[in-house]
Amino acid sequence: MNRYQVLFQPGDLKVEVMEGSTIMEIMNEAGIDLDFPCGGRGKCGKCRVKILQGAGQPTAQEMDILEEEELKQGVRLACLTKVYGNISVELPNYKKLEHNILIASEERSFQVEPHLKKVFVEVDRPVLENQRSDWQRFRDSLARGGYDRLDGETPIALLRRLPETLRAAQHRVTAVMYGGKVVGIEEQDTTATMLGMAFDIGTTTIVGYLLDLYSGKELSVVSTLNPQTKYGADVISRINFVGQEEQGLNKLQTAVVEALNKLIGEAAEKAGISRNHIYGVSIAANTCMHHLFLGISPQSIAVSPYVPAVSEPVVAKAAELRIDINPAGKIFVLPNIAGFVGADTAAVLLAVELDRSDDIKLVIDIGTNGEIALGSKEKMVACSAAAGPAFEGAQISSGMRGAIGAIDHVFFRDKLDYTVIGGVSPLGICGSALLDVIAGLVELGIIDKRGRLLSYDKLTNPAAKVYKDHLVQYEDQPAFMLVDAEQTGHGRPIMVTQNDIRQLQLAKGAMAAGVQVLMDTLGIRVSDIKEVLLAGAFGNYLNPHSACVIGLIPPELESKIKTIGNAAGTGAKLALLSASEYRRAAEIAGKVNFVELGSYPKFNSIFAQSTYFQPTR
Amino acid sequence: MNRYQVLFQPGDLKVEVMEGSTIMEIMNEAGIDLDFPCGGRGKCGKCRVKILQGAGQPTAQEMDILEEEELKQGVRLACLTKVYGNISVELPNYKKLEHNILIASEERSFQVEPHLKKVFVEVDRPVLENQRSDWQRFRDSLARGGYDRLDGETPIALLRRLPETLRAAQHRVTAVMYGGKVVGIEEQDTTATMLGMAFDIGTTTIVGYLLDLYSGKELSVVSTLNPQTKYGADVISRINFVGQEEQGLNKLQTAVVEALNKLIGEAAEKAGISRNHIYGVSIAANTCMHHLFLGISPQSIAVSPYVPAVSEPVVAKAAELRIDINPAGKIFVLPNIAGFVGADTAAVLLAVELDRSDDIKLVIDIGTNGEIALGSKEKMVACSAAAGPAFEGAQISSGMRGAIGAIDHVFFRDKLDYTVIGGVSPLGICGSALLDVIAGLVELGIIDKRGRLLSYDKLTNPAAKVYKDHLVQYEDQPAFMLVDAEQTGHGRPIMVTQNDIRQLQLAKGAMAAGVQVLMDTLGIRVSDIKEVLLAGAFGNYLNPHSACVIGLIPPELESKIKTIGNAAGTGAKLALLSASEYRRAAEIAGKVNFVELGSYPKFNSIFAQSTYFQPTR
Repeated sequence: MNRYQVLFQPGDLKVEVMEGSTIMEIMNEAGIDLDFPCGGRGKCGKCRVKILQGAGQPTAQEMDILEEEELKQGVRLACLTKVYGNISVELPNYKKLEHNILIASEERSFQVEPHLKKVFVEVDRPVLENQRSDWQRFRDSLARGGYDRLDGETPIALLRRLPETLRAAQHRVTAVMYGGKVVGIEEQDTTATMLGMAFDIGTTTIVGYLLDLYSGKELSVVSTLNPQTKYGADVISRINFVGQEEQGLNKLQTAVVEALNKLIGEAAEKAGISRNHIYGVSIAANTCMHHLFLGISPQSIAVSPYVPAVSEPVVAKAAELRIDINPAGKIFVLPNIAGFVGADTAAVLLAVELDRSDDIKLVIDIGTNGEIALGSKEKMVACSAAAGPAFEGAQISSGMRGAIGAIDHVFFRDKLDYTVIGGVSPLGICGSALLDVIAGLVELGIIDKRGRLLSYDKLTNPAAKVYKDHLVQYEDQPAFMLVDAEQTGHGRPIMVTQNDIRQLQLAKGAMAAGVQVLMDTLGIRVSDIKEVLLAGAFGNYLNPHSACVIGLIPPELESKIKTIGNAAGTGAKLALLSASEYRRAAEIAGKVNFVELGSYPKFNSIFAQSTYFQPTR
Repeated sequence: MNRYQVLFQPGDLKVEVMEGSTIMEIMNEAGIDLDFPCGGRGKCGKCRVKILQGAGQPTAQEMDILEEEELKQGVRLACLTKVYGNISVELPNYKKLEHNILIASEERSFQVEPHLKKVFVEVDRPVLENQRSDWQRFRDSLARGGYDRLDGETPIALLRRLPETLRAAQHRVTAVMYGGKVVGIEEQDTTATMLGMAFDIGTTTIVGYLLDLYSGKELSVVSTLNPQTKYGADVISRINFVGQEEQGLNKLQTAVVEALNKLIGEAAEKAGISRNHIYGVSIAANTCMHHLFLGISPQSIAVSPYVPAVSEPVVAKAAELRIDINPAGKIFVLPNIAGFVGADTAAVLLAVELDRSDDIKLVIDIGTNGEIALGSKEKMVACSAAAGPAFEGAQISSGMRGAIGAIDHVFFRDKLDYTVIGGVSPLGICGSALLDVIAGLVELGIIDKRGRLLSYDKLTNPAAKVYKDHLVQYEDQPAFMLVDAEQTGHGRPIMVTQNDIRQLQLAKGAMAAGVQVLMDTLGIRVSDIKEVLLAGAFGNYLNPHSACVIGLIPPELESKIKTIGNAAGTGAKLALLSASEYRRAAEIAGKVNFVELGSYPKFNSIFAQSTYFQPTR
């Protein structure tokens, strides 16, 4: 088979490839980060690249998706284009594809209580008159320090290093203890330093916090896109990848582990410390990300009855999971609640202390799978709403994620107004803007209760008539043109089509139905809810008013909405800094009653009802 | 560098080698088992091979050691001969070099009490109404079986296999439990089978016993030479190898682990079972072999104050030590007593129940390092006597190990008589025969009290005069010719030289002094000792009368001597079959007071005294 050269621009990156590789495969191999929301099936059209030299015939799928002008210019889909000669590829928005990753969050008070402890000991030197073994003398000195009973199996890896360590350190060593177990032995007194990292592994992004395990102080924060994205944008496509691809599970696990190791390195560098001083890592993640990180197949999550392989908190050795920190280090994985309500939700509930709340609170994390929890210290229930990718901009005609170039907010004041992430010419809209547009159009009566985009002649609200020119036909369906072609960064108009509205209706209907089912389960009314806590990136960026107008959140609750930032990250930090908080996460996960919407008796009718736009005020 | 062919005969084994390799290296690489007692330093002359074609110039060392006739015939030392062309090598006694390995032993009664337990459980199938995780449902079913609290960290390797195992087995699985820990999960009901192997890893030989862990029944016995022998015959040369050779520790560990895995395969095949049914392995070994098996450097044992890295019992996962049995399997290593009184002695004391004996007993394992224990349930003391290799036939002019062709017993009746292992023409003498010869010569007055071999004219005992022709000069020293050149298998006479007698004096002096020091330590006399138990190969083969005549064992105890076979193997079996017996081994090891002969105040004078041959009866 022939080999060809591919030159990527900008950046002048040259790659030698096998004949017949797709550009997507080549980019993945070369570590070029680009999103493939549909997992490389040529359906979403989001992986447009321009072939500067050597573009071949487009495929039928590309001819369907791409504009004629684009095809002429050599624009192709990276996932469908195969290489049969030397080519040169331009990645137009590549440099800009940096995400706004949510790292800030509310903090709460708690007691620092490290999982691991360090004990400095001066070990007796061996003498002819008393030939106790190295391990025995070490244990005797630990016993004098209060550790007179050790648990568990003899740590052979430590025994192997013990003789040399003792002698190199003149018998002055520091024991790293995890409960009654010696997990590390270090030369000299190293008790002054003990750091840890808390991670929130999202489907799309990963955030890591470097913390001092004694003071609780945050030393640095790092984040990255989840590199698993290249194997599929959402949980389901990654589960399919595990089932269909040889070594699929291994590839996904390796991708996330490598990302964590890279982030650990970055965080350490930022803070000016050595990764060898990191002894603990906590992990919050949804159930699928949780399983993939542990190298456990998540396939059972995707088929009825949707059970995870494991829900309990998992404590592992760093080496066992190939996490590159101090060899004595431990990984503390937070517990899952159910197949689609994961350790990230457990972390959120820990952060907001729902288990100790006198008031009933509604906690929502909006995403492809929206997690909803409701309750108080009396009782907690939770469910997962399959909202689909609309909130993340996927399967929306002009949709994109909250990256540079995305319109993130839209205002219907005297005239249409919007803001763009990064202040550049707009490239598309992200979920928060989609909410604003649709809420605005609902308020203007341009969209009716059932979600139909009305034609100009059907409008009754005078304020709506201003938008006459925005009401267009696009691809044989009614559409609202948000930005015309001349004002965008790519020369294509930005639209909200009738189909986009339908997608949003399904998404918000799923969420609203979930809230309704949980209220029914607890036997409460909307007025019993004292607070609505919006966790996660989307909840943080959306306009609460828009969310209420479209009925994503019951309109009566608009004044009770509070955004809590990356609360999953906060929960991960708490679990890392305090062994009691980690145990409490397990208690919370055990107490929450999971409600499976699919098997809830009246779910279908509740869902159908919830897709409507209710009359506002 | 050129490559040449080496052809080994018999067997027609062709090996391609790098120019300049020694024949020893080539044999080691090719897996040809031959002894190199001096570790390849060209000192012992025991690795004679015949170069049939292509013999080069002998080295100065070879000219020193080899007979002129041998040199002419192409006989060379494998450790010194380097290859600079295609050659053909004859291994004269290779096929015969099978050892008599001691496997039989006394048994005692005990209660079978497996370390691991198997529990068959029918796990609930997952349902929509109750989405407990696989691990939770598995644990719930275990709890119904009485295991309601699990210890330790979550076993990630098991979690990874759990979803598939449960579904493949229709949720009918067997849990393998070690204490409160799940160490294995197997499809269907496998509770009927649980096997184990007990190993005694000696410096020279390894014996393995395949046992049914339920009934205690022995299913097969296997043995082999310890392949570490090729890196040095004794403990000290192996410790040197660790210190001097790159990856020396790793090589030695790998050698013994591979040997055990091979033996496990053989034992399984003999018994017609699968190695996957083996769940437990126990290990008795001297301290150095113990450390090498665990991959722990034994170097601290060899330098004052001679402390081991670890004495406590070590329990390890099979995979951690690369032992190829069921993945749930555990390795139970017996505890050491001191640097030169190892887990093999702990096993012997467990086998003979010295800790529960009303009578004072003397337990001796004679070898290069002789281990001696003395005491009763009141108090136990032990020491290690550095006897040197004389008892094993090394550094003795005609010495060899107890292999085919070795004279093992000598009788001074009307005339000189002897027996040869395998009934072939004799090739040398092993330790037991050396004892017999010297004891006989002492009794005949041919050797005086100080160990001098008297000349014929100094003999006073008429019975001694029969041996006139045997009293010769050999290599400038007086010698006793046991077999003349015509009657041996290799055409060289078999001699016991004055120097050989000196070697034996040092060896038996060390042992006898050890016994004396232990008696002094306990404050007892010879007459207080009610039984002498001889463990190990040499103790099993020697003639107790000879041992008493030369004073290796106090002559007063001759009638109290009992051989107990491979008692270390028995101890290993007990520790494997019963968790209480394993714990008891640790108690014994902790109770035994180790006496360091080197720092015992009067040791030098006791030793000097002990080298004499006492007047007998």
